[in-house]
Amino acid sequence: MAATVQDAIILFGDSITQGGWTEDGFGARLANAYSRKLDVLNRGLAGYNTDWAIPVLKQCLAPRDGSELLPKVRLLVVWFGANDAVLETGSQHVPLPKFIENLKYMVNLVHSAESPYYSPTTKILLVTPPPVNTYQRAADLGSREPAMALDREFERTKGYAKGVKEAAAVSKVEVVDVWTAIWKKAGEKEQALSRYLSDGLHLNRDGYTCRLAETFEIVYVELVNAIREHHPELHFDRLQYVFPAYVERVGHNSD
Amino acid sequence: MAATVQDAIILFGDSITQGGWTEDGFGARLANAYSRKLDVLNRGLAGYNTDWAIPVLKQCLAPRDGSELLPKVRLLVVWFGANDAVLETGSQHVPLPKFIENLKYMVNLVHSAESPYYSPTTKILLVTPPPVNTYQRAADLGSREPAMALDREFERTKGYAKGVKEAAAVSKVEVVDVWTAIWKKAGEKEQALSRYLSDGLHLNRDGYTCRLAETFEIVYVELVNAIREHHPELHFDRLQYVFPAYVERVGHNSD
Repeated sequence: MAATVQDAIILFGDSITQGGWTEDGFGARLANAYSRKLDVLNRGLAGYNTDWAIPVLKQCLAPRDGSELLPKVRLLVVWFGANDAVLETGSQHVPLPKFIENLKYMVNLVHSAESPYYSPTTKILLVTPPPVNTYQRAADLGSREPAMALDREFERTKGYAKGVKEAAAVSKVEVVDVWTAIWKKAGEKEQALSRYLSDGLHLNRDGYTCRLAETFEIVYVELVNAIREHHPELHFDRLQYVFPAYVERVGHNSD
Repeated sequence: MAATVQDAIILFGDSITQGGWTEDGFGARLANAYSRKLDVLNRGLAGYNTDWAIPVLKQCLAPRDGSELLPKVRLLVVWFGANDAVLETGSQHVPLPKFIENLKYMVNLVHSAESPYYSPTTKILLVTPPPVNTYQRAADLGSREPAMALDREFERTKGYAKGVKEAAAVSKVEVVDVWTAIWKKAGEKEQALSRYLSDGLHLNRDGYTCRLAETFEIVYVELVNAIREHHPELHFDRLQYVFPAYVERVGHNSD
């Protein structure tokens, strides 16, 4: 068995989280920044909405009376909305009020003293879904075999992004506002979002700079800024190595 | 606490392992390939040799009578030699026979029925260190303030790579021969290794294709090939998702 030598950051979300390790994605970059300090666990579930995610979260967190040998969750990043916001006709649809309740439920699961998963030392960040480019999304769905009709709306996803902020305000946790960050980068023009989205829905992974997927860069920077601002004690620069650095062993730096 | 929902692959080594999450490195790629299946844990320790690594390995593995709630280690990848192979004058130097003994000791720690860390279901792969480009290394060390003398030799590291194979043969585990893979790619010319090394010692991370660090690509491919050949039951294509795929939930594929 693997002993617990590092505590954990859990990235919990849908396909956009699951894909965060592709091509220098934000998850992989975070894992690199936290190497020898915290393990960054990918708990992304492509296609999932918050209704389906709640029972999974209960399995990913150990009950408070569980083994002390398990890693502490120092930070839980919750990023849903992209699937909850499909049209009512879609199987993934979760009505906005229920979506907000679900996010509050997830926070309570960790922060309510009555919860079996109560962990007051676990910091939580809620992330807003990226804006949808319905032009790009319609073209992508229309090109499939068989062709599919547009399943999302720009304004609706925007409403779910606002819902994340509402849930966070009520739950007294902080927000990483990816929706606004990407929207501003696109000059507040829906069609310009194709610069940051691969298919109108998912963050692009091809990137426009040599080794960098630009959208994942936005997400990474926003996430690290939120950690620095709201939970500075968890910023990687403030954490010590678990095992001593080589330079501490030999008294000088080499390789 | 984080519950154990996925078993683990541990990548245990020196700076070349620790850096494996940078810029689409082999560790990050492996974590992506195993998403929703196994957690890939970075247990790289920059500057460490095998003497210093052994006590760390004992802390990273849970004793056999430890908590059953901890993740099983399905695969342990051990990659040392780059530091053990410094000249006798260097503080990191470990004599070749001791280096071989240390690797055998690490395997025994997991595979010997007498060991407190005995885990017969943990597969082990030993990895050979990359070849050294002493021209590039000498230039790099000479350019430092203060200038440092060359600390490694091509033939010596080659000997340590052979030592890894010797240890593997005795211990009856398989080898990922990164030394030979990179050496062949370089046309068996030491100076041509600069294509794959950033400073004569470490794998380059800049890469020569747009998003890809080519050396990390070599390591990733060699590692996945070794898994496919020697432990096919652990190849990511053979593993199921821990939580059901979206398509299984709704009966059709969307996003």
